[in-house]
Amino acid sequence: MKTIQVLFFDVLGTVVDWRGSIAAEADSFLKRHGASNIDASTFADAWVGRYDASVEAVRSGKRPFVSLDRLNRENLEACLEGFGLAISALPSAELENLNLAWHRLKPWPDSVEGLSSLKKRFIVAPLSDGNTRLLVDMARHAGLPWDTILGADVSLGYKPMPQVYLRACELLGVAPQEAMLVAAHDYDLDAARRCGLKTAYVARTNAQDPSKIDDPKPPGDWDYTARGLIELAEILK
Amino acid sequence: MKTIQVLFFDVLGTVVDWRGSIAAEADSFLKRHGASNIDASTFADAWVGRYDASVEAVRSGKRPFVSLDRLNRENLEACLEGFGLAISALPSAELENLNLAWHRLKPWPDSVEGLSSLKKRFIVAPLSDGNTRLLVDMARHAGLPWDTILGADVSLGYKPMPQVYLRACELLGVAPQEAMLVAAHDYDLDAARRCGLKTAYVARTNAQDPSKIDDPKPPGDWDYTARGLIELAEILK
Repeated sequence: MKTIQVLFFDVLGTVVDWRGSIAAEADSFLKRHGASNIDASTFADAWVGRYDASVEAVRSGKRPFVSLDRLNRENLEACLEGFGLAISALPSAELENLNLAWHRLKPWPDSVEGLSSLKKRFIVAPLSDGNTRLLVDMARHAGLPWDTILGADVSLGYKPMPQVYLRACELLGVAPQEAMLVAAHDYDLDAARRCGLKTAYVARTNAQDPSKIDDPKPPGDWDYTARGLIELAEILK
Repeated sequence: MKTIQVLFFDVLGTVVDWRGSIAAEADSFLKRHGASNIDASTFADAWVGRYDASVEAVRSGKRPFVSLDRLNRENLEACLEGFGLAISALPSAELENLNLAWHRLKPWPDSVEGLSSLKKRFIVAPLSDGNTRLLVDMARHAGLPWDTILGADVSLGYKPMPQVYLRACELLGVAPQEAMLVAAHDYDLDAARRCGLKTAYVARTNAQDPSKIDDPKPPGDWDYTARGLIELAEILK
């Protein structure tokens, strides 16, 4: 552990509660547009549930890199249509504002304190599928004390593509074994480990992609396991 | 001014006092290695004076992109040899530590307060020839409150190459006219303006490249001119 200089963090699900935050903003949006019959949590799950397939098009090379902001907007429009709401009847500024809910995702209760504590000893940076501006806005909104921000648009790739982890290490001036990924998702930690990074699993409720079947397996055999970021800071002391 | 969302900052000379900081560390180094006959300020100017020619090799395409850390180390060794000190007689860890003086450059007295004030209203980010890790270490050391950090290794270019300014705007999700460069150097502001960014000149003493002849011209006709970052924050209120 002495050699670890940099902690990279998955953000969506690990640092912020994406599903809860999006459901709250969707609820307000649906009520404003006469669609209070639609359950906001179901709507949020349907929107977030389109995430993986859209990102996969980029990962597989079927589509050139585009930002998460753009993928989210496309998915939002498809999702609204799926619930029977006509896009053409909705003001574009309202759609854009709902799409920017991703820039305002709320941190889990322990995230700011945990990151602040970890920052005393390590360089802390997000390593997220979010684009840089999304993550900058989120950090300003939520008070996340990142040392720097590495959006997917820096490496022009989406996790678990190896270039994401390796480019991040290169930019932070460390060998992979001098960095650790902190994440609530096994697939992410597995990819980081294959690239040579250390791994820390943080248990989060409701952090999984709703498009994937719940995985009943226990978390993998990672270097560290914690129930949150404050506990992780204690473990790494 | 209403449309400006992002302020980019030149760092070396504009936010930190590179010559003074390097002279102080060189002084300590030279004394430790029995070379107190060498004037530390003269040595610092000779080292920093090699900067532009080494960066120009990358800008002109004669050499693939390499980080400022590496260019500084090469220049340090050439400089020491130029002063008659044999590299082979100096411990490598000591050379590396002196090279890391660039990661510990001290801010001008108004930098932290000025940036903190500007950050309330704008996204603030360095746009520097320094590599990302250099700038991260500097920010942690000096308490610079950047929203994110964009080193030269993000765009793989050195100022005034247009890709540096344009890639930075792209990553921060703004059109060039929604961003402003803050710098103490006319060549940097001129390149930013050609790319479509707004410009703010900040007067700094002793911020020029010592390899260049002092330029007696008054500063150019920039969008804003201030005597420091606190004054700039007042002007932009």
